[in-house]
Amino acid sequence: MNIVVQKYGGSSVGSIERIQNVARRIIAKKNQNNKMVVVLSAMGDNTDDLLKMAYQISDKPPKREIDMLISTGEQVSISLLSMALDAMGHKAISLTGPQVGIKTTGHHTKSRIMDIDDAIIRKYLKEDKIVIVAGFQGINEKSDITTLGRGGSDTTAAAIAGKLQCKCEIYTDVDGIYSLDPRLYPNARKLDFISYEEMLEMASLGAGVMHSRAIEIGQKYNIPIYVASSINDVPGTIIKESEKNMESALITGLAIDNNDAMITLNHVPYSINVTAEFFDNLAKKDINIDMISQTSPQDNGVNISFTVPKNELSDAKEILVYMTKKYPDISYEIKEDICKLSVVGIGMRSQSGVAAKIFVLLAKAGIQVEMVTTSEIKISYVIKPADQKKAVEVIAVEFEL
Amino acid sequence: MNIVVQKYGGSSVGSIERIQNVARRIIAKKNQNNKMVVVLSAMGDNTDDLLKMAYQISDKPPKREIDMLISTGEQVSISLLSMALDAMGHKAISLTGPQVGIKTTGHHTKSRIMDIDDAIIRKYLKEDKIVIVAGFQGINEKSDITTLGRGGSDTTAAAIAGKLQCKCEIYTDVDGIYSLDPRLYPNARKLDFISYEEMLEMASLGAGVMHSRAIEIGQKYNIPIYVASSINDVPGTIIKESEKNMESALITGLAIDNNDAMITLNHVPYSINVTAEFFDNLAKKDINIDMISQTSPQDNGVNISFTVPKNELSDAKEILVYMTKKYPDISYEIKEDICKLSVVGIGMRSQSGVAAKIFVLLAKAGIQVEMVTTSEIKISYVIKPADQKKAVEVIAVEFEL
Repeated sequence: MNIVVQKYGGSSVGSIERIQNVARRIIAKKNQNNKMVVVLSAMGDNTDDLLKMAYQISDKPPKREIDMLISTGEQVSISLLSMALDAMGHKAISLTGPQVGIKTTGHHTKSRIMDIDDAIIRKYLKEDKIVIVAGFQGINEKSDITTLGRGGSDTTAAAIAGKLQCKCEIYTDVDGIYSLDPRLYPNARKLDFISYEEMLEMASLGAGVMHSRAIEIGQKYNIPIYVASSINDVPGTIIKESEKNMESALITGLAIDNNDAMITLNHVPYSINVTAEFFDNLAKKDINIDMISQTSPQDNGVNISFTVPKNELSDAKEILVYMTKKYPDISYEIKEDICKLSVVGIGMRSQSGVAAKIFVLLAKAGIQVEMVTTSEIKISYVIKPADQKKAVEVIAVEFEL
Repeated sequence: MNIVVQKYGGSSVGSIERIQNVARRIIAKKNQNNKMVVVLSAMGDNTDDLLKMAYQISDKPPKREIDMLISTGEQVSISLLSMALDAMGHKAISLTGPQVGIKTTGHHTKSRIMDIDDAIIRKYLKEDKIVIVAGFQGINEKSDITTLGRGGSDTTAAAIAGKLQCKCEIYTDVDGIYSLDPRLYPNARKLDFISYEEMLEMASLGAGVMHSRAIEIGQKYNIPIYVASSINDVPGTIIKESEKNMESALITGLAIDNNDAMITLNHVPYSINVTAEFFDNLAKKDINIDMISQTSPQDNGVNISFTVPKNELSDAKEILVYMTKKYPDISYEIKEDICKLSVVGIGMRSQSGVAAKIFVLLAKAGIQVEMVTTSEIKISYVIKPADQKKAVEVIAVEFEL
């Protein structure tokens, strides 16, 4: 008998009716001779509502207490789903992250999974129960409740599937992975397959469908991850290992991210020590740097640009203030009015000139590029949000996305 | 340095402002050189709202899942209070029932506390933290989350105070214990002191202020329990050991309970075995029998009347059906339109004739009594709800309550 791990997101369990709908889908899958493990997010806007209360009380609520607060959301959804399954005649058991032994490490509100005690899940599966696990949460070495940050429930699902060596199905409010967001470009193509690597680049760039950590885990354990709609029965997209002999499209996908700000440091002393100290301080605050671009040194040092999530900007500013006090030559500039456009494709590995081709396209459209970084299968451009629509269009048409 | 355990009920933490108000009260007490342990209920109607969702999903949701669901309520309130204290500059830590090692036994939704691991609380108190504990909940031997049933947060507070051998203060939406409910009789007297025994009788009879389990624990560990308003600073009532030499009032209090139904069994075979089997079956279903009255045997057996909470009536009916099938001579009758009026007083021990006096009062007022039971310090009468107001009045006037 197969085990299947299914994950349903917040909007899929946003009401009593939707929870009942999810219960019916689980039962249908179970009746196809599967043992079911289900990972849930909190209902609809529940997490946001809880956070709103927290920020009414404090500008800077302790993150341990934030985790204590918001981890209740999944506990509500899992118990209600368990009741719905019971009412439909199927044995089920709901388990919190701590109960299922999801051990985490790292900072509160963005912890990482260290290990999962699959014995507990296997025990209940043997009792022929549908096991319902609270996504997004775990327990750290101090026995404090932790949460996994954005996309945490996807990560929980992938980690459990990895541990159980079984299929992972992510049901969400989109019906698969598109070459680019259909809201940005209505003619966007839905992909039947995408490689872990391409999806990783897409996810970390804000494709919005899945968080990169879940895909990394899928890749690590070589678990195919199926992404599909929790409402329709339209076929979704399978994220899996890339097939070596398959002729790859030059660009598989295009992603836009409006959540980052760009910080530029000028006159940084040309010393790897200063640069290292700077990024080390940012890392210690758990600030996610994405693009980094450093220009060749000039007389008065080097210039470094990098992007950080806007919601981590206040933490980053503290470091900026500290470092510019320590190194008074350095000045800094923050631009929040930017957007990041990235193109991803395994085909880039074997074919050159993609960056050049896009530069030409953007130039023809009169779009200014503020920053560029490249990797083996990805190129990212920082442009003005006002230019976003035009840029997406010219690239999508050219590369038949 | 003293330790003080304070408990705040649901209406005391029903909004952000009220939580902040509670935080200020805790800080004031802490500044009087006390180490603080605070037990909280869920915010306002939170538990009811969660239960409403559960019953939208199922007529009979599994009780394990009910506990999983409703235990989130306290987790929300404790984390918010911890944030409020932090914002006011005081270190605090919130802990769930499982985290604080509140081990429980018995059935889900009405578990009993077996033990508390006070080491965890003491450790955080030593770190000079205000320890905030989720009331009403614990963990059983299977590591499932459990809840303690009605008045559970009071029980949590008393149990922690008992374990720490310190004062217990219960803050609620009434400003103390009254001789009878002021809503029933506006001239009711507030008591400065009441003995554990009297309060136990008052509590189990629906005085509504505190649950009897908390008082039992107070009595067992000889911890005085102070009951007062969480809003006003009016002095409340201390529940403590009765002072032997104190001249006791004949009646300390009068309580009304509208939550019970009366079941009468007719033609029960005159055999202790049958009666025992009957009540044993009810006990196995955890049904709380309160009054039991058995009349002297006649030719066709004995008649037995007893009261059960109305919300346990459907469980009780299953037993009735089973037993009347097994013993076809027995017939039964259920009356839901009843109310229970009880008078309590340690003074009854030394003075006789209270029951007679009340019978006369009720007869003069034309009030029919359906059932009577007596104990050493309590007499209970089952009457019609329509007669309740009149009965309260004549007794309150006569005994100067």
